[in-house]
Amino acid sequence: MIKIGIIGYGNLGKGVELAVSKQPDMEVFAIFTRRDPETVKTNGSKVYNYDTIKDYKDDIDVLVHCGSSEFDLREQTPKLAQDFNIVDSFDMHAIINEHIKTVDKVANANNKTALVSVGWDPGIFSMHKTIIDAILIDGETQSFWGPGISQGHSNVASKVDGVLMARNYSIPNQANIDAFRKHETIDTSQNHHKECYVVAEADANLEQIEADILNIEYYFKGSPTKIIFISEEEMKTNHSKWAQAGQVIRVAKTSDENKYTLDFKMELDSNPEFTSSVLTAYARAVYNMHTRKEYGAFTALDIRPRDMSSKDFDSLVKEML
Amino acid sequence: MIKIGIIGYGNLGKGVELAVSKQPDMEVFAIFTRRDPETVKTNGSKVYNYDTIKDYKDDIDVLVHCGSSEFDLREQTPKLAQDFNIVDSFDMHAIINEHIKTVDKVANANNKTALVSVGWDPGIFSMHKTIIDAILIDGETQSFWGPGISQGHSNVASKVDGVLMARNYSIPNQANIDAFRKHETIDTSQNHHKECYVVAEADANLEQIEADILNIEYYFKGSPTKIIFISEEEMKTNHSKWAQAGQVIRVAKTSDENKYTLDFKMELDSNPEFTSSVLTAYARAVYNMHTRKEYGAFTALDIRPRDMSSKDFDSLVKEML
Repeated sequence: MIKIGIIGYGNLGKGVELAVSKQPDMEVFAIFTRRDPETVKTNGSKVYNYDTIKDYKDDIDVLVHCGSSEFDLREQTPKLAQDFNIVDSFDMHAIINEHIKTVDKVANANNKTALVSVGWDPGIFSMHKTIIDAILIDGETQSFWGPGISQGHSNVASKVDGVLMARNYSIPNQANIDAFRKHETIDTSQNHHKECYVVAEADANLEQIEADILNIEYYFKGSPTKIIFISEEEMKTNHSKWAQAGQVIRVAKTSDENKYTLDFKMELDSNPEFTSSVLTAYARAVYNMHTRKEYGAFTALDIRPRDMSSKDFDSLVKEML
Repeated sequence: MIKIGIIGYGNLGKGVELAVSKQPDMEVFAIFTRRDPETVKTNGSKVYNYDTIKDYKDDIDVLVHCGSSEFDLREQTPKLAQDFNIVDSFDMHAIINEHIKTVDKVANANNKTALVSVGWDPGIFSMHKTIIDAILIDGETQSFWGPGISQGHSNVASKVDGVLMARNYSIPNQANIDAFRKHETIDTSQNHHKECYVVAEADANLEQIEADILNIEYYFKGSPTKIIFISEEEMKTNHSKWAQAGQVIRVAKTSDENKYTLDFKMELDSNPEFTSSVLTAYARAVYNMHTRKEYGAFTALDIRPRDMSSKDFDSLVKEML
């Protein structure tokens, strides 16, 4: 059994615990948290304080870090790669390259295997985009995200005066999707808009709330957004899930007569549970690579599909080829 | 420049010549044929007789074999793997495993890298199916092919008495696709039907033609097929392309509340030109693997997306992650 250490026990950490329980060849060794371990209720996994993690370096095959890119992964992944094989979901795009290089040095020096910046985007979508781009040279790829919740936007909107609850969705522009699929030129700045569902206090000034939300710098200002006021009951019934969706479309040609449209689309009821399932399959790949002494920092683009699967060679040949 | 040798100059071989010409880091060394080289008109590539291929073993980085699985690849890939790195599209499903093992022995013994059974299915679809199966354990994957031409069926139908031309399409059952995407149980024997377009001789008995086609053993008998008689002009205008399409759908759940639908769909104006483009990107992966001394026979499931791409690491990080 591949022994997994999980760092963090929010939505993502809980999802990894669930995903590992479904895999036939993996088990959770423990969850590591900065909170008081006594206060963390898990679905059966042991809980240790994060500060004690080094004590367990010989017990854990792969760590799955479920922390935040900005506050945790940037600092901690390079440190942890001294003693552990590790998977992280670092997604601060502008500095991914720097993160990879920092982790690579440490992992190489310590004969560890690290896989950084995985999840579904970056991650699964990155593998897919690279493959279709390599095959069809003469083309263009676009990604569309949603309809789905963006947690950051929901948080800032819920802090506006008079707002009880807010959930913001990113919505792809179906007209742009349809036009792009037909090999037409699109205005990519219009690929998405936002729909923000708001529960207001009883006596609130709705016009003022709308103006305040639309004016939030970096999040809503200047970006096409529809504010929709709903009841608390409707919010709880229809907007309590962490649903998300995303698609990658490549249009290309091999000659003026011969055109191609490739679509990869995912519809996810639970974004965190799906992302956790992705991290878990990548953890198996890290285990397999480390077993073969492939040390250093890698990205999704270095992963062989076979390494992600628990199935043996004969089953894969039969089912997949 | 990666030097490619192409075996065979039918639709697929021509497509590889075209695809290589689009890649920035590859060139065609020569095309090898069993025909008299003088009679083969290429788009600029040299042509040599297949029997002389060993003379060029030091000039070619990777061979792309564009022959038939049954008549060529089964015998020739293992022999060629003594002297060459090679890509083939062997797709006789029942004996793929045996083919891999035969080629693996030869390639390993001679420090060569062979990639067998690639194209889009098996190949790209195999990579995709393996990844989504590894991530979402609790689910089911179905593939649907078409609408698109099946060459074998078209050939046998065109040999029926009174038939001038015939082209047979495989058509997926949209009702099954829709139901499966909604996580409903489907009768997979009804996933496809056939539509055979026929140009008949002027005085032919159409009822007899229809009965004869529907009665062809192994191809049409017992399989839902619609025969559609059309004019020669309509055949040439609307059915002269080698269009094909295919899709892989996975439905899965992480819990009773949280469901997932993953769609990968390809619409191809030219099946041979697309397949050739796939083989060409895989040839680059073989070159990269051989450079790293990864010898033996591999399948699509062993391929890292990065090895298929001509782009450097920094460009890939920027564009794909």
